[in-house]
Amino acid sequence: MIAKRIVVIGGTAAGPKAAARASRLDQNAEVILLQKAPELSMASCGYPYYVSGMFKEREKLLCTPSGVVRDPAFFAGAKGITAMVETEAVSIDRESKVVSWINAAGNNGLLAYDKLILCTGSVPKMPPIPGRDLKGVTTLHSMADADAMRSWAEHSSGKKAVVIGGGLIGMEACEALCHAGVDVTVVEALPQILGFLDTELALLVENHARAKGAKIITGVGLSALEGENGQIGSARLADGRVLPCDLVVMAIGVAPNTALAKAAGLEIGAFGGIAVNDFMATSDPNIYAAGDCVEITNRLTGKKMLAPYGDLANLEGRVAGENAVLGDSVRFPGTIGSGICKVFDFTAASTGLSERRAREAGFDVVTAINASPDKPGFMGAKPLVSKMVADRATGRILGFACVGPGDVNRQASEMAVAVAAGWTVDEMAMADLPYAPPYSQAIDHAIATAHILQNKMRGLMTGISSVEAKALFDAGGPLYILDVRGHDEFKENQLGRGETLIPLGQLRGRVNELPKDKNATILSFCKVSMRGYEAQRILESAGYTDVRVMEGGLMAWPYTNEL
Amino acid sequence: MIAKRIVVIGGTAAGPKAAARASRLDQNAEVILLQKAPELSMASCGYPYYVSGMFKEREKLLCTPSGVVRDPAFFAGAKGITAMVETEAVSIDRESKVVSWINAAGNNGLLAYDKLILCTGSVPKMPPIPGRDLKGVTTLHSMADADAMRSWAEHSSGKKAVVIGGGLIGMEACEALCHAGVDVTVVEALPQILGFLDTELALLVENHARAKGAKIITGVGLSALEGENGQIGSARLADGRVLPCDLVVMAIGVAPNTALAKAAGLEIGAFGGIAVNDFMATSDPNIYAAGDCVEITNRLTGKKMLAPYGDLANLEGRVAGENAVLGDSVRFPGTIGSGICKVFDFTAASTGLSERRAREAGFDVVTAINASPDKPGFMGAKPLVSKMVADRATGRILGFACVGPGDVNRQASEMAVAVAAGWTVDEMAMADLPYAPPYSQAIDHAIATAHILQNKMRGLMTGISSVEAKALFDAGGPLYILDVRGHDEFKENQLGRGETLIPLGQLRGRVNELPKDKNATILSFCKVSMRGYEAQRILESAGYTDVRVMEGGLMAWPYTNEL
Repeated sequence: MIAKRIVVIGGTAAGPKAAARASRLDQNAEVILLQKAPELSMASCGYPYYVSGMFKEREKLLCTPSGVVRDPAFFAGAKGITAMVETEAVSIDRESKVVSWINAAGNNGLLAYDKLILCTGSVPKMPPIPGRDLKGVTTLHSMADADAMRSWAEHSSGKKAVVIGGGLIGMEACEALCHAGVDVTVVEALPQILGFLDTELALLVENHARAKGAKIITGVGLSALEGENGQIGSARLADGRVLPCDLVVMAIGVAPNTALAKAAGLEIGAFGGIAVNDFMATSDPNIYAAGDCVEITNRLTGKKMLAPYGDLANLEGRVAGENAVLGDSVRFPGTIGSGICKVFDFTAASTGLSERRAREAGFDVVTAINASPDKPGFMGAKPLVSKMVADRATGRILGFACVGPGDVNRQASEMAVAVAAGWTVDEMAMADLPYAPPYSQAIDHAIATAHILQNKMRGLMTGISSVEAKALFDAGGPLYILDVRGHDEFKENQLGRGETLIPLGQLRGRVNELPKDKNATILSFCKVSMRGYEAQRILESAGYTDVRVMEGGLMAWPYTNEL
Repeated sequence: MIAKRIVVIGGTAAGPKAAARASRLDQNAEVILLQKAPELSMASCGYPYYVSGMFKEREKLLCTPSGVVRDPAFFAGAKGITAMVETEAVSIDRESKVVSWINAAGNNGLLAYDKLILCTGSVPKMPPIPGRDLKGVTTLHSMADADAMRSWAEHSSGKKAVVIGGGLIGMEACEALCHAGVDVTVVEALPQILGFLDTELALLVENHARAKGAKIITGVGLSALEGENGQIGSARLADGRVLPCDLVVMAIGVAPNTALAKAAGLEIGAFGGIAVNDFMATSDPNIYAAGDCVEITNRLTGKKMLAPYGDLANLEGRVAGENAVLGDSVRFPGTIGSGICKVFDFTAASTGLSERRAREAGFDVVTAINASPDKPGFMGAKPLVSKMVADRATGRILGFACVGPGDVNRQASEMAVAVAAGWTVDEMAMADLPYAPPYSQAIDHAIATAHILQNKMRGLMTGISSVEAKALFDAGGPLYILDVRGHDEFKENQLGRGETLIPLGQLRGRVNELPKDKNATILSFCKVSMRGYEAQRILESAGYTDVRVMEGGLMAWPYTNEL
């Protein structure tokens, strides 16, 4: 048997995984990896933590858990893979099954393949504005970017940076630079940061980032970058504001890197990524593709999407590597869209569809917001605010998001499985999760969120979100706002919208103090709105017909308080 | 309409939850809660942390997240529930639907009910041995126990305690007393602590507890407690050893408290718990039961079992409370068996069936062990060791356990949903979980465990556990043991079983140093056995037919090293 040759283009995440899987499954296959950068298997999601100075050794981004740098010698010895670094694939001749390459030393050559795997990744988007080529305008996409930003940050305490884009990378870059002592302003053209979150939750994260010293401007685009002698000096916003700065980080997203695939005539999908089937095969059965350069199926909508995440790149690469050597046998099921990021002392995570995205996808949704501590109070609990989104007709959970200083990680991880498993709200309401006080509440936070949504779906609770409540306040119509917390809590902080305080324990005896009109609109709340919900039940039994609960209570109220 | 009266017996976890749910769903119902203890809604799972001195205020075990103590006034005002504390239900007249009670003040009375909910909890098991009534012999079951143990521990630094039972409560009590400066010995009659874990993982926890200063004796029972003047002085073990001590904590488990139910003629199940159907209704349709006193269905085996856990008590109570007021409408789906506990700096968790329990239940299982860091190294990763158990024929995941200083909580929580959802190993291998370096590896630990199990099930990897490897060593047959780590790692620590070191990177070139007999048994390993697995693939392609990988490598080896 003549050994198969597998050529893999791209050496960051999907590429090395595909190559390693292929090599392990067929020890006789010749596996060759082409990598344009000098480094291999960079932990690119770790760049912000390197920039922040959390660790100093760049090798940590490049080595295995046992501390070996993943260089060509490592790939040859441990994996049986020939890794050619600083080597760029220039073109693909699909008919002859040959890749042509050039390298940094000026050499070039041709590589015949039996199977080719494209893992060409993504390129950062750059807005078409003046000044984008000024020195000091950068992205945080490559190891070279990270090195440059790290060495800048090391000596720039007190200097000013503007981060364009308040998405995941933008907020991570913001935190990294803040930690390095830089004065950071994030500029986000959309009305909120972290587009994967609905507004109620995004605002809480925004408040927290501001409290930590970051400046955040939303709803205003960038119009130009300006400077002198080719060096950045300021960012000009669409509303005329000028932000003086020494560094601009462009973080408005990435686009799939498909130049090679396009030139080779491979099919490109509607979203601009390389089109692949469930086997990660492109329109050419001898060519697979994986990672940021492809578009994959959203398991909830059934539609294709771009999903440039490091974890998916690895899973896709594993499938591509296997199918390339064994023939199409393993299917990649697609994504539900799961993301998590650290924003100072907060974590923000989302899995599945947000309410906004679910509505855009045509779902008729019901939602619930839950604010509650992650653990019992005696264990040093920290708050969590979450939102669950379900399909109204079937009760299927479409998405879950969670933010706060508490253990968001557990919540988002368990819910990612629940969403992918197609669980309904009723099923989540009965989940059997590990419980002990150091790890969760007796009724886990996400289970409690499911209980709230269950109550709403059954008409037991009429809840509105903080955003809806604010709209109600702003509308200025007749509204009785009822705070059912205790006197001590009321002294500490207030909603400040003309509310009346009647502690829950007294409500049954003081119903006569409420509006005489039983059809009056009453909005009840407390710290987290558990008591607010009890109040609604009491008032409804007293004959009131329009009692609403402000979900998540004061803890989830993002307009005056910080969580 | 005449208001319904719901009487709930028991005020710890299931009872208050059932009462609150009933009251919320039917504001007109009269809900009366009888509680024998003076306290209500005690966070009994928090007792060990109170005993350890982690917090000093006992009220923290009794109050709501907003700091209000859950006393009868709170229940009346906030919940509309009449809570009668220090009041014991003496008997139930099912025909007349009346409960008779007495209270601490010496009063007694009768309470008619429309629906009755029994949440009588459990009683700690006591072994039938001499000396069990000595002063200084206690359990950690009630608030009174916790108060007494707390005040003892406060002034007993340097004193000696013996904990009988190395289960969840036993190990928590052990840690609590160690933190208080007490010299603690745990005595477990079974060959290992933490019976919900398989041996490979339990031994790692045991090593850790020992390293933290706890003494642990396994495989030896208690034969007598001895003392003078009615005060405990020592514990005598079955092997003749005598352990001097000032305190003995009995933690050999709990039994359902069914005295009242039995006397009333309600059906009791095969495991000694009150028999209930899916609606949490007993054999009397007017009487429901929930919490530690009932037996429930294991969703994996379909068989009944006792599951005395605080989280389940809450979920069961919610169902019982709802069905009691609205008629049987909500079903409790049963348990998969999820538990987690803190043992010093380790967490130990399990969900679903261990290998041992799966085999006992008649499953033909395949398993895999994975040792790997919870996060990337540059984020300050901590180790995790996990074991996944699946049904061989269908690939359905039956159980997952995880121990270590890393973030076990995320792993066990996501896997609890996967097990309950009936996911197969292949489904878990493609899970789409939230990933960022502060929260997990790019390939999440549990996904990696699924990958290992997938490789085993497909015959790509032949792995054996540490326990099986030790049996192989002990058997003394011909065996070539191959360590494929680097020279530096080898210098640091060794398995010490006569192994040969050939770093993986050199293996392809040094195959000639291995046994000439291609049928020789070779056991390969490394730090976590990822490289051990690569070595197996290389050797098999070189013609070796019996290469096995020691799963989890040195990190999961419990006989000489500490994790």
